Amino acid sequence: MNRGNPDGPFLATALGKRAARRPMWIMRQAGRYLPEYRAMRERYSFLELCNTPEAAAEVTLQPIDRFDLDAAILFTDLLVPIAPMGVGLRYEPGPVLSRTVQSAADVEALGALDPDTDLAPMLETVRLVRQRLDPGKALIGFVGAPFTLACYMIEGKGSKTWDRTRRLLHEQPEVFDALLDRLASALEPLVAALVANGCDAVQTFDSWAAVLAPGDWAERCAPRTERLLRAARDAGGVAIHYVNGAAQHMPRMVESCAHVLAFDWRLDMSAARALAPDTTLQGNLDPTMLFAAPDRLRQAVRAVCTGAGAERHIFNLGHGILPEVDPAAVEVLCDEVRRS
Amino acid sequence: MNRGNPDGPFLATALGKRAARRPMWIMRQAGRYLPEYRAMRERYSFLELCNTPEAAAEVTLQPIDRFDLDAAILFTDLLVPIAPMGVGLRYEPGPVLSRTVQSAADVEALGALDPDTDLAPMLETVRLVRQRLDPGKALIGFVGAPFTLACYMIEGKGSKTWDRTRRLLHEQPEVFDALLDRLASALEPLVAALVANGCDAVQTFDSWAAVLAPGDWAERCAPRTERLLRAARDAGGVAIHYVNGAAQHMPRMVESCAHVLAFDWRLDMSAARALAPDTTLQGNLDPTMLFAAPDRLRQAVRAVCTGAGAERHIFNLGHGILPEVDPAAVEVLCDEVRRS
Repeated sequence: MNRGNPDGPFLATALGKRAARRPMWIMRQAGRYLPEYRAMRERYSFLELCNTPEAAAEVTLQPIDRFDLDAAILFTDLLVPIAPMGVGLRYEPGPVLSRTVQSAADVEALGALDPDTDLAPMLETVRLVRQRLDPGKALIGFVGAPFTLACYMIEGKGSKTWDRTRRLLHEQPEVFDALLDRLASALEPLVAALVANGCDAVQTFDSWAAVLAPGDWAERCAPRTERLLRAARDAGGVAIHYVNGAAQHMPRMVESCAHVLAFDWRLDMSAARALAPDTTLQGNLDPTMLFAAPDRLRQAVRAVCTGAGAERHIFNLGHGILPEVDPAAVEVLCDEVRRS
Repeated sequence: MNRGNPDGPFLATALGKRAARRPMWIMRQAGRYLPEYRAMRERYSFLELCNTPEAAAEVTLQPIDRFDLDAAILFTDLLVPIAPMGVGLRYEPGPVLSRTVQSAADVEALGALDPDTDLAPMLETVRLVRQRLDPGKALIGFVGAPFTLACYMIEGKGSKTWDRTRRLLHEQPEVFDALLDRLASALEPLVAALVANGCDAVQTFDSWAAVLAPGDWAERCAPRTERLLRAARDAGGVAIHYVNGAAQHMPRMVESCAHVLAFDWRLDMSAARALAPDTTLQGNLDPTMLFAAPDRLRQAVRAVCTGAGAERHIFNLGHGILPEVDPAAVEVLCDEVRRS
């Protein structure tokens, strides 16, 4: 099987070694801000694109071809792996689940997940991308953190504050715990399969952790995410722990087994570096900074890089790039990261 | 004019003096979880209720009568004061503004606000409540922080992440600054009028500050909120600075001139106390904890009170109480606060 070169900028930095340059990639880099992606979306619905390996591989590689980024991230969606568990997933265009989890019986009723059969297109996409990707660049697979997937399974759609999720956590903590355990158990084999099929790294996305008190997250959520990070390590991959809400959760994140801690812009990079002096950090520019004037954008990029230091930093945004961004702004971003 | 007794539990604690008991009130305490409030809402729409002094005074006093809370908070809405500025406010049921701010010209076009004429029903409500309220209890008025009001004025409705607001901040910082200045200037006379008509305290609500990086909030938002807190102090009232997003903003909050720092559950009360050892703190139970079993609820209340310490603490939730809460759970909450 193909593998990324461990001396490439992304993998070397992730593993704490010196690298030829500060590596960078962009969350949701294969997305609607790119005209070549929008052209593909005229031919495929979102879920069709996720489930058509040739097409998914093509959009995965589009931003690498355009911007010479140091890592490709598999084109799929956080919720694709839970669709086979029988939740009735559709996009309108945000995700909507026709069956939600409210009780222990609902957790019991969730279907099993066999990645080799249920997610064969995803694993085929991984193999295609790894074959075509420059060996000096890494391929990142990803899964939702159990808490973030549970948010959707409990509420059935997106929410500003995930009140019903926090209510279930406090009202029926045993159901909440069982759901997160069930999700961690379902995803562990997927994490191993992603690495076995050619991903150099796996990132766990805890996109909604910001709504939780630090104690609740540390006690009930972080340990279940840790199972997935451990699975990535055990399979021989790099483990990346992304948490949106690092301002309150970073003191617990630093205890993780992950190779890389990734986070949003609500925690200053310099503050994160003080909490994690010897860990590789990934992030964390506010994605809306890509709308700023070029000089202001460059200044903000330099502040992130200076806060992180010259080594052990993978530049990224703090959350996904927005569809309205001009690709020319991404050129400015890339240029400034290469200089910093 | 009537005033609350400065030796009452709320005002004494807010001013850093010993109090007969740990004071408490509940954000959005006059709300849909109360049957007596729902009965009023059958007779009045939300905006009608805000603008009908006898009715607004009645619902303001309902939770005091039921739970013997230490402070009443004026029944109104954050956006009521900006309606006279010509934004086309309606509720369906969330707030929707028919005119948004995208440019310097849009800021210029905003109408003036004269509280004595434009908000006469609000000030009449203040006078009615203060006449009827036990002198040992405080009356709190409130205004939106300029940033949080700007969020609605820029986007026209609620948002999960306020991307367009952060975009304007970075793309047209001078427009963003002008809008916040305009809002602070419009609200300063209202804050003074609230105190002059009988409010013992004014709370600024920065409900959406959690989406901002600490530097952006400290540089552009906190100074404009500070103008309103200063106006409350200068008028002889207690200034309460509520920020949802204290996990990243508390280091700046402690520099405020406010008498009381109030915040959400994403920052542990004990961590806040370490950052502000001598300041009165208000908060910060996760509102969904009111769905927990009574023993678990009591344990969580004790954790907040222990973290804050025996003095200089006003118990509250970290955000508004939810409509689905059983008033019996609030009885448990009150009982445990009285014991802690």
